[in-house]
Order: sequence, then structure tokens, then C-alpha cells
Amino acid sequence: MNLLLLEEADFIAADRVVLADRRFTHMQEIHGVEVGDTLRVGQVNGLMGKATVLRLAGHEAELQVAFDQPPPAKLPLTLVLAVPRPKMLRRLFQTVATLGVPRLILVNSYKVEKSFWQTPFLNPETIRENLILGLEQARDTVLPEVIVEKRFKPFVEDRLPAIAAGTLGLVAHPGPYPACPRAVESPVTLAIGPEGGWIPYEVDLLGKAGLAPVQLGDRILRVETAVTALLSRIF
Amino acid sequence: MNLLLLEEADFIAADRVVLADRRFTHMQEIHGVEVGDTLRVGQVNGLMGKATVLRLAGHEAELQVAFDQPPPAKLPLTLVLAVPRPKMLRRLFQTVATLGVPRLILVNSYKVEKSFWQTPFLNPETIRENLILGLEQARDTVLPEVIVEKRFKPFVEDRLPAIAAGTLGLVAHPGPYPACPRAVESPVTLAIGPEGGWIPYEVDLLGKAGLAPVQLGDRILRVETAVTALLSRIF
Repeated sequence: MNLLLLEEADFIAADRVVLADRRFTHMQEIHGVEVGDTLRVGQVNGLMGKATVLRLAGHEAELQVAFDQPPPAKLPLTLVLAVPRPKMLRRLFQTVATLGVPRLILVNSYKVEKSFWQTPFLNPETIRENLILGLEQARDTVLPEVIVEKRFKPFVEDRLPAIAAGTLGLVAHPGPYPACPRAVESPVTLAIGPEGGWIPYEVDLLGKAGLAPVQLGDRILRVETAVTALLSRIF
Repeated sequence: MNLLLLEEADFIAADRVVLADRRFTHMQEIHGVEVGDTLRVGQVNGLMGKATVLRLAGHEAELQVAFDQPPPAKLPLTLVLAVPRPKMLRRLFQTVATLGVPRLILVNSYKVEKSFWQTPFLNPETIRENLILGLEQARDTVLPEVIVEKRFKPFVEDRLPAIAAGTLGLVAHPGPYPACPRAVESPVTLAIGPEGGWIPYEVDLLGKAGLAPVQLGDRILRVETAVTALLSRIF
């Protein structure tokens, strides 16, 4: 945790917070903070700044806080992602938040197993928890928007064209396609498939919505590695 | 597992292997293979090709194999990495192998906790297991070389200059440095610090060995994300 993210409920006054949860434990066990120490803090969806430890009790800490710094810019990106297997999902939310993705749309795809949709990692509270962890890692405060689209065709036909309009639309897909572009200056809409990839019908439909296939080479990457590699190359 | 990697001990004839371990379980439980099915296979440090399932018993499978395809090219890179915390180390070996790093040098650094060196994940057999998992993910066969350098100064002063000679030497370090270069054509020597970064003395010493500091922006990335982001941008 490189930034302590504060929620509205933490505030007992405009410049005072009391923490008694995971963040208190982390401050004590990992950072070993003492009264008088200063920490980097941010308000969820707000500014960043500094906190001073005023009081440490056995189960809670009281901090004085001051905010003066905007969070880092987000990427000009909508990321469309086929739902990965549950064990990858937690880290994926963290990574997406860390990298500065402002909007993530999780979609179904032919090769997504139906059971993946049942995972508790898709509960809004769990998604939020993992996004917060990713923001704390990066030193950012602004929660990405996460949209869940369980039906591929209506999403891609009815809603994706408006999302992709005015952006560079890309589908990551192995095959005889152009290499993924580098250092793109315009906004981007990027779709990344499931393990095993999109099926041709899906690539066609994404193409009609304005997303052109591009490839990253012969190596098959885990979805989280693919997300990082693609965003690092494109931006 | 996108490629089934075969070891010398698996062979019962030039074109026959018997598998009874993790790979047999994976074939059955994840891929649900049956007699007559074909699978992508590779020989560790050798060629890739196809296997046909000849026989499935309760505890083992016999495959006929033929090899005809070279593995994908590696990156022209030596990656020097401060030892990360143990829980990150397993995935890091996998990611390094997946991305095509041919040589990884793990070094000490001021901010590496001494206890990190005690982890069983640094045992050669465990390193090899995780490299194999990363190669199976990427569809590669060639094990990266992993070198462990427990003492920073003698390594950087005595051995790193020869490694970096004739390459583009880079140290990833946050600060007022040039942005990390893109699409580099020459071989690269890249050093990535621990959580918390290198200390100034270390950056100086790495600079004398031929590695210039570059930065990736304001966001602080986990080491595995940083490795992927840097390699994807540089190559």
C-alpha cells in the first residue's frame, strides 16, 4: 500500500479520520508507524495529501489529514474484457486499477465457462475492494467504472459502436493481423478475449462495431499479463 | 498449459512418452483428453510438435510424439532484478519465462529484506518448476538462465560492466529521468529495483556499470506488472 485511501465514513471532522480495519493493521504491521509519523493519503475519488498520526490505540489510529494534490491522469481508454477464470479476477481488478484504466466492461464470450459468472469475485463490494487495493498500489484515488455485460451480441451490436466512435478500436487476437500499435495519442477502445481467444464470429462482430484485430506476437500471455503488455505498448 | 513440456525422463522410445504426474492430471481434468486426441508438445530446451494419445490408464497416459517446429525467439535481454518478496517470486519466474527473457539475474539491494533470501521459492528445483509453468503458458521450450547474486556491490562493479557492454543499459527508477525508450532494436540490459526502489548509491553504481535511469510515469507498479510493462514497451 503506497497510499492510504480514506472513505467518507472514516472522517470524524473535516481534517480528522479514525481507522480500525485492514488499513490500521497494515499501518502497524507493515509500516510500523508511530505517533507523529506522516503518511501519504487520498480520498476515494478525491485529492491526495498527507496524514499525521495523532493517536495510536490497541485497535485504532487517529490521523490528521490535509489534501492538496490531484491524482494521476487516467488512460484515455475503455477496456472490454471477456470474463476470465475466477482465480484471475481479483488480481485483474487490482491491475486494471493500478494501470489507470478508467472504464472496464466485462463481457461474455463463447469460450467463457458459464460457471465463471457465479464467482463471488463479481460481487460489487468485492470488485470495489480489489479496485481500492489497485489504487493504493499505484497512488491513485479514482475508482474505475466497472460494467458487466452478460450478453455478448446485444452489447457489441447495440452499445459498443457508440463507445468505440471517435476512438481507435482494437481487438487483441492472435493471427495474421497487424502488430498492436505503439504510443497511440487518441482515445482507445480495446477488447481482450478469454483464454483460448475469441471465436471468428466474435471477431467479425467486434469488427463491425469498429474494433480492428491486432496481435502481440507468438507468445500466449495470461490475461493479466496481456492487459499490462497491451496497455504499456499502446500508451 | 498451452504446451505440454516433455523431459528426457518421460521418453520410453524416440517417439513415445509416458506421463503420470501433474501433466497427466491436467490433461485429464482440464483438457479432458481421450485416446486419439492430439496435443501440442515440446521438449525442454528443444523443438515443439504434436502428440497423439495412444493409451489412457487410471494413473498414466502414453503419447506418440513428433517434433518439427522451433520455439519462439527470446528477447535480446539480460534482466537484473532486486529479489522481490517471496509471495511474488513464484509468479515472477513464470512471467519472466512467459515473456521470453533468456537470462535473469536476481540481486540484493538495500531495500530487500534479508528474510527474502530464505524463501524455498529460491531453491533451484522450485525455480525450474515455475519457469516450466511460464514456458507452458507461452508455448516456449527453452528454460531461461537464472543467476543469483547475493552481494550487490561486487556484482555491479565486477561483473555487470561486461554484461552491459554493447547493450542499451537501463535502470527503471522513478524520478526526473527520461521516459523509458520504446521499440529498441539493440540488445538491452535492464535493472528493476525492489518495492521502495533503489537507493541513490545503487543508482550511481548501476550508472557506472553502464545503466542509465529511465522512468515509466507516476504510478507505482508491483514488480511483476513493472517487468511486463517495461518489456512490452522496450521490445
